[in-house]
Amino acid sequence: MTTPILLTPGPLTTSDRTREAMLRDWGSWDSDFNAITGRIRKQILAIVHGEGTHECVPMQGSGTFSVEAAIGTMVPRDGHVLVPVNGAYCQRIARICRTMGRRLSTLNYPEDRIMQPADIDAALEQDKTITHVAVVHCETGTGVLNPLEAIAAVVARHGRGLIVDAMSSFGAIDIDARKIRFDAVVAASGKCLEGVPGMGFVIARREALAATEGNSQSLALDLHDQWQYMEKTTQWRFTPPTHVVAALDQALQQYMEEGGLAARGARYARNCQMLIDGMAALGVRSYLERSVQAPIIVTFHAPDDPHYDFKTFYQKVKARGYILYPGKLTEVETFRVGCIGHFGDAGIPGAVKVIAEVFTEMGVQAAACAA
Amino acid sequence: MTTPILLTPGPLTTSDRTREAMLRDWGSWDSDFNAITGRIRKQILAIVHGEGTHECVPMQGSGTFSVEAAIGTMVPRDGHVLVPVNGAYCQRIARICRTMGRRLSTLNYPEDRIMQPADIDAALEQDKTITHVAVVHCETGTGVLNPLEAIAAVVARHGRGLIVDAMSSFGAIDIDARKIRFDAVVAASGKCLEGVPGMGFVIARREALAATEGNSQSLALDLHDQWQYMEKTTQWRFTPPTHVVAALDQALQQYMEEGGLAARGARYARNCQMLIDGMAALGVRSYLERSVQAPIIVTFHAPDDPHYDFKTFYQKVKARGYILYPGKLTEVETFRVGCIGHFGDAGIPGAVKVIAEVFTEMGVQAAACAA
Repeated sequence: MTTPILLTPGPLTTSDRTREAMLRDWGSWDSDFNAITGRIRKQILAIVHGEGTHECVPMQGSGTFSVEAAIGTMVPRDGHVLVPVNGAYCQRIARICRTMGRRLSTLNYPEDRIMQPADIDAALEQDKTITHVAVVHCETGTGVLNPLEAIAAVVARHGRGLIVDAMSSFGAIDIDARKIRFDAVVAASGKCLEGVPGMGFVIARREALAATEGNSQSLALDLHDQWQYMEKTTQWRFTPPTHVVAALDQALQQYMEEGGLAARGARYARNCQMLIDGMAALGVRSYLERSVQAPIIVTFHAPDDPHYDFKTFYQKVKARGYILYPGKLTEVETFRVGCIGHFGDAGIPGAVKVIAEVFTEMGVQAAACAA
Repeated sequence: MTTPILLTPGPLTTSDRTREAMLRDWGSWDSDFNAITGRIRKQILAIVHGEGTHECVPMQGSGTFSVEAAIGTMVPRDGHVLVPVNGAYCQRIARICRTMGRRLSTLNYPEDRIMQPADIDAALEQDKTITHVAVVHCETGTGVLNPLEAIAAVVARHGRGLIVDAMSSFGAIDIDARKIRFDAVVAASGKCLEGVPGMGFVIARREALAATEGNSQSLALDLHDQWQYMEKTTQWRFTPPTHVVAALDQALQQYMEEGGLAARGARYARNCQMLIDGMAALGVRSYLERSVQAPIIVTFHAPDDPHYDFKTFYQKVKARGYILYPGKLTEVETFRVGCIGHFGDAGIPGAVKVIAEVFTEMGVQAAACAA
């Protein structure tokens, strides 16, 4: 059986070269392996132009582990976090704050709307006890792109800390540490850098990170301790996912060869445009307005036709070589298609063609979902 | 360059078949992948004969992440943990308790001595506020094997909870859930099961686990939440390390084919005996008495010779194809050699031969370290 192409927001389809990097074992104490760790940290830092001012601290686990590590380490135990919420991943940050016992305030938006910097401005003006703002850059729940630069400017003006979950945007949508002031930007190996899943990383402003000793109420997720140990020894504190690290190293080499962020972002933008156009031609309407759509993952309205059900649709599309993603909205029936991953230019048109075939086979009138 | 054999306590040398399982990508939502997760959980549970009474909950990250998850979830926030300490990994558990703010008591032993069940008995008798005992089964700092069965009997008699860090023993040294009462046994993919590193797992007594909702002050490391979600959906809560999971599945198949725990344990015991005998013939003395030595990793006294230094020794042995491990003792200079991993019967004698050659080349009189 051919492996299906993953049109999902990570894990995603990786290159043979990236996967083949996992064909050897590494000692976690060994200098050859630690050179890989050092190289990855440096290259990730370069993507945000954070050399000299910021630190890249890798962390074992999924991206959420790194988000929790960033919040638990950067926010003091008596800190107060403002979380603007317009989707599932923002809600997850709020849940992390609650679970850890960090004081939390939220600003709530409909899932098809972006966060408003003016609201954040007003909230920070009104409540001086808020120490940090935590936002999701591209909210993968819907695929909406929040206005990071404007939000960062507001937060900086108020002198508060900013934590950015850039899980699904990092490496494809520009975040320039020279222009955007943040305490932490968080992402993971298995997203736009096109590595395999198993580790995340936090890019932290060095000055902010240096002041966080003792904040964490977790040993495993203590970013300050991880950083200090890595600086001292070049090693990870606890067993690293050696094969995942080696794969990310290879993926980063391919990222540079492709042309870095500009090229990666442009490729995904082309995929996204082909996808929206192709689906529109089938009569399938995307959930978000084009102006707020990130080129990462697109949410589509499910056809309003009794012949449609997601599981059958999913299985039939999968049998033809593409793996889609379920919707994450509670009020509207949707499904999602990712634009990211290592597949050729034929990937998206191929998927659209298959979706059309499957609708026909299911007797679904896709146009039924048009506005 | 040939990949060196890792004589380290994990990451270790894995089989080609295990690594080749990482050559495909999996969707984390997909039923094919979730079938793998289900199979792994079942097979791990079978190793301890925990079917029907226990639950296997996998967790992203290194083994330490799973240890922290077990303690943070099984021990209520106002719980009190007794940690007998005879090595670095016991100390790590104590540090986890301190960092999480769980009340902690310790019983301290020299690193070459095993924990005494009678001491634990007395401590539990004396202090009724102790809710849990947390022990390391094979303390990898030295390689000492603690008397788990006797400790478990004491803890059960007092009706307290037992949490076992079985990181480096699991799958090679018997832990039978029908005979040993424990709340949680913790291990990881990249140790005696001979998978690659990147995930751990906790085997929890179902009745104990079911009572832990709300204990965790971490979302990522909340074992109860991970369990509940997995039961409901067959999926991991947050992105799983898909390739690491697929590799563990393959490694477990080979584990069964080899003959399960009895065969794996016997192979490691042979390795350990060959190693100790071979090194003794060179005049290199092992740190532990044979009666308390686990067949996982052996600590050796460094030669008491001015020509010896660990870094040179390590590099020269590595250049000849074997990766050793530094000592973890502060008072005595040692180095460690692992007995676990996928290498043939020639592995250990080959390593001993190389160590002899390197001593000669360095002008080290190994016999200088004999008693």
